[in-house]
Amino acid sequence: MTQTSFPAFLLLFILLSTLTRVHALWPQPRSLQTGSEALKLSPTFDIIVSGNIHFLPLDLREAISRTKEQVKNDRLGRVVVGRGSSDQPLLFQAKQLDALYLSFGEHATMSSIADEARKPLESRDEAYLLSVPCDGSPATLVANSSLGAFRGLATFTQLWYNFNGTTYALHLPVDIVDSPSYPYRGFMLDTARHYFPVIDIKRMLDAMSWVKLNQLHWHAVDSQSFPLQVPRFMDLAHKGAYSPDEVYTPDDIADIVSYAGARGIDVLIEIDTPGHTSVISKARAEHIACPEFMPWRTFANEPPAGQLRFASPATTNFTASLLEAVATMFPSTLFSPGGDELNTNCYDQDKETQSILSSTGQNLEQALDRFVRTTHQAVIDLGKTPVVWEEMVLVHNVTLHPETIALTWISSDSVKAVAQKGHRIIHAAADFFYLDCGGGGWIAPDLAGNGYCDPFKTWQHAYSFDPLANLTTEEATLVLGGEHLLWTEQSSSANLDPIVWPRAAASAELYWTGPGGNTSDALSRLHDLSFRLQKRGVNAIPIQPLWCALRPGACDLPTTSST
Amino acid sequence: MTQTSFPAFLLLFILLSTLTRVHALWPQPRSLQTGSEALKLSPTFDIIVSGNIHFLPLDLREAISRTKEQVKNDRLGRVVVGRGSSDQPLLFQAKQLDALYLSFGEHATMSSIADEARKPLESRDEAYLLSVPCDGSPATLVANSSLGAFRGLATFTQLWYNFNGTTYALHLPVDIVDSPSYPYRGFMLDTARHYFPVIDIKRMLDAMSWVKLNQLHWHAVDSQSFPLQVPRFMDLAHKGAYSPDEVYTPDDIADIVSYAGARGIDVLIEIDTPGHTSVISKARAEHIACPEFMPWRTFANEPPAGQLRFASPATTNFTASLLEAVATMFPSTLFSPGGDELNTNCYDQDKETQSILSSTGQNLEQALDRFVRTTHQAVIDLGKTPVVWEEMVLVHNVTLHPETIALTWISSDSVKAVAQKGHRIIHAAADFFYLDCGGGGWIAPDLAGNGYCDPFKTWQHAYSFDPLANLTTEEATLVLGGEHLLWTEQSSSANLDPIVWPRAAASAELYWTGPGGNTSDALSRLHDLSFRLQKRGVNAIPIQPLWCALRPGACDLPTTSST
Repeated sequence: MTQTSFPAFLLLFILLSTLTRVHALWPQPRSLQTGSEALKLSPTFDIIVSGNIHFLPLDLREAISRTKEQVKNDRLGRVVVGRGSSDQPLLFQAKQLDALYLSFGEHATMSSIADEARKPLESRDEAYLLSVPCDGSPATLVANSSLGAFRGLATFTQLWYNFNGTTYALHLPVDIVDSPSYPYRGFMLDTARHYFPVIDIKRMLDAMSWVKLNQLHWHAVDSQSFPLQVPRFMDLAHKGAYSPDEVYTPDDIADIVSYAGARGIDVLIEIDTPGHTSVISKARAEHIACPEFMPWRTFANEPPAGQLRFASPATTNFTASLLEAVATMFPSTLFSPGGDELNTNCYDQDKETQSILSSTGQNLEQALDRFVRTTHQAVIDLGKTPVVWEEMVLVHNVTLHPETIALTWISSDSVKAVAQKGHRIIHAAADFFYLDCGGGGWIAPDLAGNGYCDPFKTWQHAYSFDPLANLTTEEATLVLGGEHLLWTEQSSSANLDPIVWPRAAASAELYWTGPGGNTSDALSRLHDLSFRLQKRGVNAIPIQPLWCALRPGACDLPTTSST
Repeated sequence: MTQTSFPAFLLLFILLSTLTRVHALWPQPRSLQTGSEALKLSPTFDIIVSGNIHFLPLDLREAISRTKEQVKNDRLGRVVVGRGSSDQPLLFQAKQLDALYLSFGEHATMSSIADEARKPLESRDEAYLLSVPCDGSPATLVANSSLGAFRGLATFTQLWYNFNGTTYALHLPVDIVDSPSYPYRGFMLDTARHYFPVIDIKRMLDAMSWVKLNQLHWHAVDSQSFPLQVPRFMDLAHKGAYSPDEVYTPDDIADIVSYAGARGIDVLIEIDTPGHTSVISKARAEHIACPEFMPWRTFANEPPAGQLRFASPATTNFTASLLEAVATMFPSTLFSPGGDELNTNCYDQDKETQSILSSTGQNLEQALDRFVRTTHQAVIDLGKTPVVWEEMVLVHNVTLHPETIALTWISSDSVKAVAQKGHRIIHAAADFFYLDCGGGGWIAPDLAGNGYCDPFKTWQHAYSFDPLANLTTEEATLVLGGEHLLWTEQSSSANLDPIVWPRAAASAELYWTGPGGNTSDALSRLHDLSFRLQKRGVNAIPIQPLWCALRPGACDLPTTSST
């Protein structure tokens, strides 16, 4: 234990940190080469589309405009002591960047960002090349799709800092060759426990796009409320929304889908079935078994109880029609009919289910198989791939289309078993990616008030997740990516941003850059991201005292701060 | 286990809940009598001060104006299914309330709310009587002080709901006899790990006043930053604030004190000494031992290391002058010179301290005793009572003024020992009242990322706290009350409201109404409060799914839902 005073030790440390630290890029590009020069952004900086492009999709043109606004308006001070004042000597002799030239490869398909983002998962082209020289010559961004260009633009905006009105970048020249490690990088929002206004969802989509998340998993309805206005099924929201104001109209839905698409995000809509459907009883009582039965814990994992009477042919047809009607509102090739937490006791107690079972000679699982095949087929007939919660693969004996994708949520330990069944996987493990955990239980009167999935899932924990743990090489090919999830028992507009950001960025980098990242290296970039999110109107929280944020490495534990 | 369908069981249950449920008052008055009639608020409702009051303090007049605005503008729907539609039959025949008559007892002293709020703890008069009849005759509020009247006004605003433009109250007539169980009911905000703009602090003060909290414990400075501009010590903020914008000017401070006072809140300023003072080294290097030494964990519980060189007479004089200068900026009779987490290793390594100790023949504890006596005396000479962290009583062998109050923070288990030393106590236990716990550690690279005081402290947990546990009757008289605390390593403007509200309301009721409250009974009132806070611009979070909030009792665990 030796005494080392600040000036000598820490200044050296900070210097080293600064030198070895690359740009505030999040997610980190998969290939990044940097130099040591600075570059100023010209006040007349422009983005110019080059080559013989006859038609530039509207959403890409708008993305280019937003990019120019962002590099001009972010005005993010560098997250170091002095906030960039020490960069001034470098800037003195720095060249100016006048333009970014955006061009497309000769095989580029010039469909819109939205169209590319909504293609089947593995065929979306998100790759791009970005070069920013330091000699004042134009930067270049090359992609083979509007979506790839959009990803490159997002990266470009993260290069820039501001000090005293000068916008500048460091570590130039920069050469980036980038594309995602995994095709599915998502965020799930539950709009049933609490309703979120469209403006919240749009702000979330913006933030998602800035970290290259490409999939909104919209858990739109649940037992508590049915905010989704579905043509031909308008009574469900009319009677099942929390209030007439807390609904998503068909126009809202189209608006959300369009806004997402223009930001490179596909919307995976989920209508959870056959469990988590109590609220349907408000409008269609005949389809729901054990509606709001008490004590609820006997009939459901969460109040209120109530599940689709899936043994009934009428309920099966109703559900198939509902899924079909919802699925046609969303252009995605993915659709989720849910499938989690089915409570069998509900059906044991349901006279109508028992009567159907005894008259048809089926058992409950056989009836479920029939229901799942029929309702999933309605979705498959629309050219969509079902995305189900893991129980459909692991717990129930039902026939799934072989292309069916499973969300492994109960635990990261479920992944191996799902892979062994040959289904593709989206990581959604409660023990890593549930953003609501650790905020206290909400079921009275629990004095301790602990939650079902304590403790809080830190960004470090999610960041350290290994998507391929325990999988064979062949099984590993089944992993499509993953998502952070927000169940909203204790969330509303009041805390949406702080509970999600910057934590959800951990999986964004995990699935874009790939696993194995070092949390200490990531930390300072995550600070940058958090501050940039704030600059752009998202209430991301600080993950360290500002003193630490401004001094990369200085708050690390001694065991690593000496490296 | 019997099957009970919703309509019969739950409707009865909700009906019972509604009948037994009193008003959405928080904190619950200590004596409350209610009836079963409704009452509408007249569109011309006014608050009239009666009796021979020659002079009404300005802050009370302003509070009366705000009260009228609140009852008119809250427009809070009742937190039940239908949001008040079922109250309409009751309203049909309800009388209108035209006025609230505010009067003062014959021994009333008509000083301002602020003056009363800043009196010594046990002499503040917060009592009031509130009667709201249902026959249309005026409501009456009687108090012996402006502060008591202000508390009564806060209660009055919580009686009112709104449905379709009609403002109304239920359970009339209401008769309330109220005064606090404990004189100190606080909230601590740390503005050193992160800076909070004045507007945030004011919003916090408003919310505090609505739940009758009466003490802001302002942990203004710490090792990370020194945002407080103190005349004659301006260099401390000049060199120690995070930035020139992140300071509290003398005008800001006066503004905060005045705003708080007008809301019945006294400001207990804390200048933590002799630990937690690293940042002073930026301006007055000579007074700080081990400034920013690494590895920090050897020299401090949290980075950066650095503590006042308390063995030095010059440092002692500097500190006494600083405390005096700060104390004169605050009218409170309380002042906190801090006193937690002193790291002795810092001094073992400090040549100057060692040299002073050896030349004077003192040991470290003797030097500390001298420092504490001198610096505390500077505060006592101004007529103020020192408020210290528990280590000053339990860990160090220092001479404290017998009136010194201790904040028991390390654990609720510390309380008994402090009481046995005869010091008065403010409960501030980390295991009950720390709002920052459970949000994940922030020291890299901790993969698990757990925090030092996990788990999250739920409102239920704080609410169940027994302030007198293990104390004798005599020791119990030493308990002044308590506070919720927000250390801001991971908090900023971005999440101030959601991390504090409604949780901090738990201790507000605990120390006003007294302990022993039932969380199930409290739950629906807390929902009401949370929604009312939202209506008034505070981002309080939901503590249950809205489905549960709208159905008191329906989400309780079966074991209690059958009562």
